[in-house]
Amino acid sequence: MSANKAIMLTPGPTPLPPSVSHAMARPILHHRTREFGELFDFTIKEMQYVFRTKNSVLMMTASGTGAMESAVINLLSPGDKALVHSTGAFGDRFVKIIETYGLKPVVIKEEWGHAADVKKLAKALEENKDVKVVFFQHTDTSTGIVNDLKKLADEVRKHSAAIIVVDSISGLAAESLEMDSWNLDVVLTGSQKGLMNAPGLAFAAVSEKAWKVVDQAKLPRFYFDWRTMRKSLKDKETPYTPGVTLVMGQAEALRLIRQEGIENVWKRTDELAQYTRAWAKEQGLPPFAKDPANILTALKLPEGVDGQALIEEILKEESISIAGGQLHLKGKIIRIAHMGFISKSDLDAGFAAIEKRLARVKA
Amino acid sequence: MSANKAIMLTPGPTPLPPSVSHAMARPILHHRTREFGELFDFTIKEMQYVFRTKNSVLMMTASGTGAMESAVINLLSPGDKALVHSTGAFGDRFVKIIETYGLKPVVIKEEWGHAADVKKLAKALEENKDVKVVFFQHTDTSTGIVNDLKKLADEVRKHSAAIIVVDSISGLAAESLEMDSWNLDVVLTGSQKGLMNAPGLAFAAVSEKAWKVVDQAKLPRFYFDWRTMRKSLKDKETPYTPGVTLVMGQAEALRLIRQEGIENVWKRTDELAQYTRAWAKEQGLPPFAKDPANILTALKLPEGVDGQALIEEILKEESISIAGGQLHLKGKIIRIAHMGFISKSDLDAGFAAIEKRLARVKA
Repeated sequence: MSANKAIMLTPGPTPLPPSVSHAMARPILHHRTREFGELFDFTIKEMQYVFRTKNSVLMMTASGTGAMESAVINLLSPGDKALVHSTGAFGDRFVKIIETYGLKPVVIKEEWGHAADVKKLAKALEENKDVKVVFFQHTDTSTGIVNDLKKLADEVRKHSAAIIVVDSISGLAAESLEMDSWNLDVVLTGSQKGLMNAPGLAFAAVSEKAWKVVDQAKLPRFYFDWRTMRKSLKDKETPYTPGVTLVMGQAEALRLIRQEGIENVWKRTDELAQYTRAWAKEQGLPPFAKDPANILTALKLPEGVDGQALIEEILKEESISIAGGQLHLKGKIIRIAHMGFISKSDLDAGFAAIEKRLARVKA
Repeated sequence: MSANKAIMLTPGPTPLPPSVSHAMARPILHHRTREFGELFDFTIKEMQYVFRTKNSVLMMTASGTGAMESAVINLLSPGDKALVHSTGAFGDRFVKIIETYGLKPVVIKEEWGHAADVKKLAKALEENKDVKVVFFQHTDTSTGIVNDLKKLADEVRKHSAAIIVVDSISGLAAESLEMDSWNLDVVLTGSQKGLMNAPGLAFAAVSEKAWKVVDQAKLPRFYFDWRTMRKSLKDKETPYTPGVTLVMGQAEALRLIRQEGIENVWKRTDELAQYTRAWAKEQGLPPFAKDPANILTALKLPEGVDGQALIEEILKEESISIAGGQLHLKGKIIRIAHMGFISKSDLDAGFAAIEKRLARVKA
C-alpha cells in the first residue's frame, strides 16, 4: 500500500465510513448469544426501513450473486416460465442462473445503456400469459442505467399475477425504491454498495404473495433455502454461522443511514450524479446511458483515449480507483460511482486526475 | 457490552488475534486490483500450506455449510450413490444436503461420542460397490470426537475408487491433517475456527482425481460452481465480489500460522486439550467423547446440574462464553474449545468459573 491517501470511486466495494470499520474490529461476538441476536434483529428491522417494506427480510452470508441464485431457486419449479427483462451484464446473469436449473426463460434484452422498455415488456407478457416470475434490475452498474420500477411493476400487474423480483444490489440505499407502495414482491441487495458495508452479506425482502410461491417451489436448495432462514428469524438467529463482523459493520452503517434519513441518502446520491454530469458536459465527455442512474455515471471517452490505460495510470500515480468498461465496453467508457460513502471532494479529486490526463491527449 | 473482559471458549467463532481485527479495519480494497489479487493469491497459497497439499484451493464467500453443499453439487449426479459416515450433527447435515438433491445416500450413523468405525465402513463398502463419493468429518464439535482419517481413507481405497470428501470445518489448523499423504480428495473448511478469522469465508481443496468428477457432474450449481472458481483463480480473482475484509483478515491470520508453524499449531491445541482433560479428571467431570478430539473437550455434568443454566450464568456474570450440548445433549454436557486464538489463561478463567459454581451445587 502506498502512502498516498486512497480514494475509491468504484461501484462496490465502496469506501467504508470509519465507524463501520471500527465496529467490525470490535471483539467478535458468538452468534448464539443474546447480544448478537439483538444486533441481528436491529439489522433486519433497519433493512426493512431501507427497503421501505413491512415484509420479512432475510440475510445471507454470500455475495449478491448468491442472493440472485436464491431468488431463482426459491421461486421457480421445473417447467415454470420465467421472464427476464435484461438491461446489462447483471440482467444477463439472471438468465444464466435460470438456465443452469434447466429452465428456458423468456428474455427481453435492451441495448446496453437503455432502460427497460415498457412496450417490449407488455408485448412479451401478452405473448406469454403463463409467466410465473418476472426478473428486473433496479440499476445496472455495467451501463449506469436506472429502470422505472414503478411503471414496469404496474405493467406486469395489468397482464398477470406474476411474482416481481428486483435485483437492487447496486441500487438500494442510493436510488429511490419503495418496495411496498410499488408492490414489488422480492427485492435483493448486497452489503457493499449503498449499504456502506464490506462485501459478504446479501439481503432479500420477500412479500407474503411471494412466500406462497416459495413454500410450493420445487427446485433443490439448502444453504440458500429461504424457508430455513425465515424459521430462524423468529429466534433472532441465522440457520448457519453468519458473517458476524459483517453484521457488526452493517448495524453501524444502518445507524448512519437512519440518522441521515433514507430520503436524504437518495438526495445526496442524486446531487453527486448531477454534479458529475455537469462536470462531464464541461469536459465534453458524453454520458453512455440513455437513461442515466444516480448510482454511477458512465462516460464515453474521446476517440484515441484508451480508457483502460487511463484508469490504470490514475490508480498507480494517484491511488484513485475509477472503474472502466466491462466486456465490449472495455477501454471505451469510464464509470464514476456516487453511491455509499463517496463525497464531493472524492469526486473533485477524480475529476482533476482525469482532466490532467485528457489535456495531455488533446495537446 | 459489559465492561468485563470477554473470554470466548466456544468452538467457532473463536476469538480473533488483534492483528487480524486490525487488518480487517484497514481501508477496504477493490477486488479487481493488483493489490487485492496479490493478497488473495497469498491466501490461497498459504491455505495449501495449512491443508498440506499441492492441490488447488478454492475460496467461497459463505459459511461452512455452503462449502458442504458445494461438495455435494460439484461431485454428484442424479442416480449416483453416496456414502455418509456420520459421527454427529454435522455428518447428519451431509445426509440432509444430499437428500435435498433427490439422492438417497447410504448412511452409517455412529453413536454420538464415538469416532467412525472402520469395520462398519468396510461392511458398507462391501455391500455398496458402486459408491461414488464417501463423506467423512474430521472432527465434530457437537460431540468432541476426532476421526482417524488416514485409516478410514486407506479402507475406502481397499474397496473402491470412490472420491473421499472430508469436512474439516472445525478440524483444520487445530487437529493434524495431511491431505496429500493421506490421499484425501476434497477437504472443506471455514474461516472462523482454527483459521483464527471471522466467519464468512469457506475453502475447498480439490484433488486432480476429484476434478475429473467435477467436470462430469450433473447437479445444478451456479454461485457454488467450483469450475468457475478454478477459472478465476488463474487471474488471482474470484468469480463474484468476495468478502474483501475477510480476506484481509485471513491473510494476516495465515501469516501468524506460518510464523508459528502448522505442526506447532497442532501441538498447542493438543496441549490445551490435555490440560483440560487433566483438570476435568481432578474435578470428577468425565469426558463425553469415547474418541476425544483436541479441538474441544465435551464434559458430562454431575446429576442435578443444569448445564444450560450454568453456562448462561457464567456468560452473564463473568463474560465467559462456554458452549452447551446440542439437541438431546442440551443441559447435559458442556463444551470447552481449544482451537484458534484460545490460550491457557482463557482456560484457567473458564475452569475457575465452573469450579465455583459446581462447589455451590456440592455444598
